[in-house]
Amino acid sequence: MTAAREGSIKALAFDAYGTLFDVFSVTSLCEEMFPGDGTALATLWRSKQLQYTLLRSMMNRYKDFRHVTQDALVYASHALGLHLDADKRTRLMAAYMTLAAFPDVKPGLQQLKAMGLRLAVLSNGEPTMLHSAASNAGIADLLDAVISVDEVKVFKPSPRVYELAEAHLKIPTTSIGFVSSNSWDANGAGSAGLTTFWLQRVAAEPAEELGYPAAHVVRLLTDLPALVGRT
Amino acid sequence: MTAAREGSIKALAFDAYGTLFDVFSVTSLCEEMFPGDGTALATLWRSKQLQYTLLRSMMNRYKDFRHVTQDALVYASHALGLHLDADKRTRLMAAYMTLAAFPDVKPGLQQLKAMGLRLAVLSNGEPTMLHSAASNAGIADLLDAVISVDEVKVFKPSPRVYELAEAHLKIPTTSIGFVSSNSWDANGAGSAGLTTFWLQRVAAEPAEELGYPAAHVVRLLTDLPALVGRT
Repeated sequence: MTAAREGSIKALAFDAYGTLFDVFSVTSLCEEMFPGDGTALATLWRSKQLQYTLLRSMMNRYKDFRHVTQDALVYASHALGLHLDADKRTRLMAAYMTLAAFPDVKPGLQQLKAMGLRLAVLSNGEPTMLHSAASNAGIADLLDAVISVDEVKVFKPSPRVYELAEAHLKIPTTSIGFVSSNSWDANGAGSAGLTTFWLQRVAAEPAEELGYPAAHVVRLLTDLPALVGRT
Repeated sequence: MTAAREGSIKALAFDAYGTLFDVFSVTSLCEEMFPGDGTALATLWRSKQLQYTLLRSMMNRYKDFRHVTQDALVYASHALGLHLDADKRTRLMAAYMTLAAFPDVKPGLQQLKAMGLRLAVLSNGEPTMLHSAASNAGIADLLDAVISVDEVKVFKPSPRVYELAEAHLKIPTTSIGFVSSNSWDANGAGSAGLTTFWLQRVAAEPAEELGYPAAHVVRLLTDLPALVGRT
């Protein structure tokens, strides 16, 4: 990635869950409901949620993220022998609607916006979940587009998902940066031709071995303005 | 699944790793190399191996199972902070070539063969790995076909993989049974139209929530002859 190409970035698309929105509150509610098992439930829930997006995409049996998230929760509770009644299930699903943004998100987006960049969310989430999370986090006004995989009925890391950024932002893929806290997501976007930024929120986490490592690694969203602005 | 349809099964295709071949020896070698961390390494290696087959398929960046398996091993050792030198990596990869079959496999296949059924392996493994494992386990002569996803350059649970069974066995999909110890694999095959048998080797394991549950659940391969033969 040359300095010249970095300087040509005109828009940034962001992954949502784990990148902009902190899913910690969900873990915390799991622990409140199932003392001692909350972290295990939240961890298995999240890994199964990802797995189901991949498996359903490959089976050509897309269901939206809300559906898949609930299926993953049901599996995780069975696997851990926890009794998930309808009330607990509803409350845990609702927790996904009111996630807080990480503290670096709003100031980071404000600085990037002030630089004239176009900003978007590009997520596996379904549109209602995403708009609700953006409003709740107070960042809706900073976003030029909220892009959901629901439009193409396949999840990340299909190239068809990352191609949505160009279609919505009216900016060529080569001038779009993609930011995700998931190394696999950055690999997917890189494979599809975007300039990738891995937001390594968990310092010890190794990069995925998928052949398309992120062009840049940052720790916080507020690290992006200096990096993207450099020419 | 009606009795009439069960009676119409003319061939059975089997998943390989974990279904016919016991990967326990790999876990055991991990533990020998990294005392105290072997089980964690083997577990993460295997889950990452599956994840990479899915992610690479969705990225349209297929690499064969050997490649993906090695990438997963490298990631897992990084994630656990274990020093995997070239010798250890080579020995662990080689362990996949000499896996034993589970004790119920050979007698089960012999009985099914004696009933006149055509038998095949249908696996994510690449052809050399599969032929080597079948020979090593002494079941090569019982198999009419060894079918690898390598032919279509996409992994399970793509329907293109399960459609290979019909192409190789010259028997319609609706008359082919598919047997896997992985619930997600049975869901994939069921979604593609095969009659599915979940070989639930781990009794406590819940079924995956993917919408296409196995038509039958068995504990051992030797449970199949009575079930398939029933008309």
